[in-house]
Amino acid sequence: MDGANRNFTPHGKHLIAGEWIAGEQTFRSSPAYGEAHDFAIGTPELVNRAAEAAEQAFLSYGYTTREDRAAFLDAIAEEMEVRVDAITEIAMSETGLPEPRIRNVELPRTANQLRLFASHIRAGDYLDRRHDAALPDRKPMPRPDLKMVQRPIGPVAVFGASNFPLAFSTAGGDTAAALAAGCPVVVKGHGAHPGTGEIVAEAIAAAIDRCGMPGGVFSLVQGGKRDVGQALVQHPLIKAVGFTGSLYGGRALFDLAVSRPEPIPFFGELGSVNPMFLLPEAMSARGAELGKSWAASLVMGAGQFCTNPGIAVIENGAAGDAFVAAARDTLVETGPQTMLTDGIAAAYRDGKSRFNGRNAVTAVLETESEGRMIRPNLYETDASSYLQDADLGEEVFGPLGLVVRVSGADEMETLARGLRGQLTVTLHMDDGDTDAARRLVPILERKAGRLLVNGFPTGVEVADSMVHGGPFPASTNFGHTSVGTLSIRRFLRPVCYQNMPDALLPSDLA
Amino acid sequence: MDGANRNFTPHGKHLIAGEWIAGEQTFRSSPAYGEAHDFAIGTPELVNRAAEAAEQAFLSYGYTTREDRAAFLDAIAEEMEVRVDAITEIAMSETGLPEPRIRNVELPRTANQLRLFASHIRAGDYLDRRHDAALPDRKPMPRPDLKMVQRPIGPVAVFGASNFPLAFSTAGGDTAAALAAGCPVVVKGHGAHPGTGEIVAEAIAAAIDRCGMPGGVFSLVQGGKRDVGQALVQHPLIKAVGFTGSLYGGRALFDLAVSRPEPIPFFGELGSVNPMFLLPEAMSARGAELGKSWAASLVMGAGQFCTNPGIAVIENGAAGDAFVAAARDTLVETGPQTMLTDGIAAAYRDGKSRFNGRNAVTAVLETESEGRMIRPNLYETDASSYLQDADLGEEVFGPLGLVVRVSGADEMETLARGLRGQLTVTLHMDDGDTDAARRLVPILERKAGRLLVNGFPTGVEVADSMVHGGPFPASTNFGHTSVGTLSIRRFLRPVCYQNMPDALLPSDLA
Repeated sequence: MDGANRNFTPHGKHLIAGEWIAGEQTFRSSPAYGEAHDFAIGTPELVNRAAEAAEQAFLSYGYTTREDRAAFLDAIAEEMEVRVDAITEIAMSETGLPEPRIRNVELPRTANQLRLFASHIRAGDYLDRRHDAALPDRKPMPRPDLKMVQRPIGPVAVFGASNFPLAFSTAGGDTAAALAAGCPVVVKGHGAHPGTGEIVAEAIAAAIDRCGMPGGVFSLVQGGKRDVGQALVQHPLIKAVGFTGSLYGGRALFDLAVSRPEPIPFFGELGSVNPMFLLPEAMSARGAELGKSWAASLVMGAGQFCTNPGIAVIENGAAGDAFVAAARDTLVETGPQTMLTDGIAAAYRDGKSRFNGRNAVTAVLETESEGRMIRPNLYETDASSYLQDADLGEEVFGPLGLVVRVSGADEMETLARGLRGQLTVTLHMDDGDTDAARRLVPILERKAGRLLVNGFPTGVEVADSMVHGGPFPASTNFGHTSVGTLSIRRFLRPVCYQNMPDALLPSDLA
Repeated sequence: MDGANRNFTPHGKHLIAGEWIAGEQTFRSSPAYGEAHDFAIGTPELVNRAAEAAEQAFLSYGYTTREDRAAFLDAIAEEMEVRVDAITEIAMSETGLPEPRIRNVELPRTANQLRLFASHIRAGDYLDRRHDAALPDRKPMPRPDLKMVQRPIGPVAVFGASNFPLAFSTAGGDTAAALAAGCPVVVKGHGAHPGTGEIVAEAIAAAIDRCGMPGGVFSLVQGGKRDVGQALVQHPLIKAVGFTGSLYGGRALFDLAVSRPEPIPFFGELGSVNPMFLLPEAMSARGAELGKSWAASLVMGAGQFCTNPGIAVIENGAAGDAFVAAARDTLVETGPQTMLTDGIAAAYRDGKSRFNGRNAVTAVLETESEGRMIRPNLYETDASSYLQDADLGEEVFGPLGLVVRVSGADEMETLARGLRGQLTVTLHMDDGDTDAARRLVPILERKAGRLLVNGFPTGVEVADSMVHGGPFPASTNFGHTSVGTLSIRRFLRPVCYQNMPDALLPSDLA
């Protein structure tokens, strides 16, 4: 592994089944700072090569032992850690995220995620093995011997997110879950961090070599044009898609996936405004403190988290005033922040402008910004305006907060009922709020994949119990999660074996 | 329960949330024999009433204890058994199925299925409860307390099948699984057995009364026109659809479900040709016997099973000749059979006519038929013709067999690779065929939800290990099954509770 942690200069190639392939056309990266580089533009032909190699690889990879796949996942984690300096440098440059976020948080999180899946498949509970033994003497009909196990589905396409260049990208959660299940992966490289994608692909390629896995088990087709993603979702050999990104882009790809001659599952995580409901007792006890904490959560990572708590629902009154004032004060003190891409910064300004022209919306804090540097914004509205105006409930990616004032518990409940699907919903409450919370929880648990009490939703724990998903538009499949060990279920299908001799059963059943 | 088992005359009404509602317009049933009756025609307005009642019912039913739901499922089973004579009489009349099939097989199967789900939810493993305890001292970030459980998704729409008027219809597998999960159900009544639907709905209504369940937990909207099904799939309060039926109708409803502003999962079981691969050693040992058994399986229930084994793949040679001759002889001896509906009989004749005009297809046994009475047909073709002509792989619902002759093991493998998605694939083999089977199994397990050795796929066991599903077009969701306890998973979604006080947790977690 000598030289793996060298000062990294991307060569800009695709990785297709173990081969680095230059592109006929290239695009130039636009880093937040530092040098730009040229990267090959993906094509449908390359997608086809990658998908065919993935299918070929599945014939062996789909039959590897769980121990062999676990060792492979562990090796990917190690190969990423060996490259920590180079990964940190290029990811910081491409995304503008600060060094500790990449080096101390996201890279360890990504490596731990790979290792968690390794230990998850070693344990084997996810296989949900079942056996109904034969009952040859049963009347009126004998029962045959039936065994069931969850099997990998085949090649999987992964679309990474801009906001987590490691944890939700090339070797992120979707890739880790698919590889753990036994599915080869074709990643569409994210145009906002192509160099980060390249070096992570290099780490995976090194792990493939070390573990003797087939090259087609992983390919990275760099992006550049829309037709790459479309070709990937429509390729007949691709059996499922993992996607993290915008509602608009995600829905378009979802529509393609379900319109195929053979429709396939599209596991899209499309974002959320993550409402917080602040109950009266908690607010009178610590309204200002909550306002301050909310603002701090809102600007973390320049607000570029799927779980950023964009909406705060509070009752009219003095405690609410203190909450808003404290939030405002904290946001004013926040310096300018760099957004991930020029496009995201522009979308943030567009999103903010939706709030400006509206009678029912009051600006609490309005800021100007330029280029990729932005500042937080804070608005306020009332419940009925919020419910009447669907635009106000749409995610603005970035540090923008909207306070929704309600007249009391009934209107809070009405607002809760009117919410669209969310990744998370949070309650801030004291013991005296328990009855009010009891009314809200049955409503809110139908709106979100995760319910929190007295916390902030950013910081999605990678764990057995995590659910990162929820009703549309938070995700396209409310029955699944894209974070945590349960996410492996997306890439499995049950198969039943009836009266099958042991010699023909998959190794997990024999 | 006095009089429940009276001589039953349908009143022809819908059941909406506990009320029997007459229709402004009616359609006349077309039974195989016996008296026809008038039934209310469903409307989008009635679908809306049923869906709103289901949503209202979910607010309490979604929070019942598992024991209460289990008792309710047991009560439905009992109320059906109490009505056994009346159910048998009307179901026989409407479907033309013989008495033992209804009385001794399908009704007990349906009742046992309800009881199996009752015991499944009593055990509670399906909840997949998970807990990651808080780690307050973890560095760099503490871990919150995370608990996860599977929760019911809300109101579910069910479209029953023509061929199982009880087990895959009003109180069939989809309804049982949804009610077990905690989801209210709106059934679109099947136009081929509306009276059977009515009496089963009566049994469910009696169980609702006995158990004090909310009326909206179950509604039956009789069919009649296409707009009922469309309105049901598109209703914003419906959160998933269970469907058993044809590829054409299923795909159209699937397309509606995924095109909604909020797309929902559509669990369609659309049928299959269920190929059998007969390996050489088994064929030389007992080719004629296998041909005879195949023919017997092919005509069971007039071939009207989703798992009817329509295709037999054999090698050229004497054993194959004996197989075909024996199959033909058995089919010739089969008397005329009544099909479920005039439409199904007409579709059978249409399907058969696809085989007649083709050079590459030889008729081994061709029969004429009229009205609802039909006879079996048997054809033969070669592997390359089969693979070139997608029509030959399309399901013909009824007792029609197609023998595909291959030149040897390689061509058998090629044929296996070319198959579309299936509910089942069967191998007939002896010990000496094990190596050949080892080559085929990895290919075949990607094509089907269930693999069988030395059996016939009809007779789908309702069990923990059963998978009745498979790659499209066998089903629209290869990750799920529509039969067996695992089918409950279709109507559940994971929810994570972070730092939630016990007082607010769902009872299954507290």
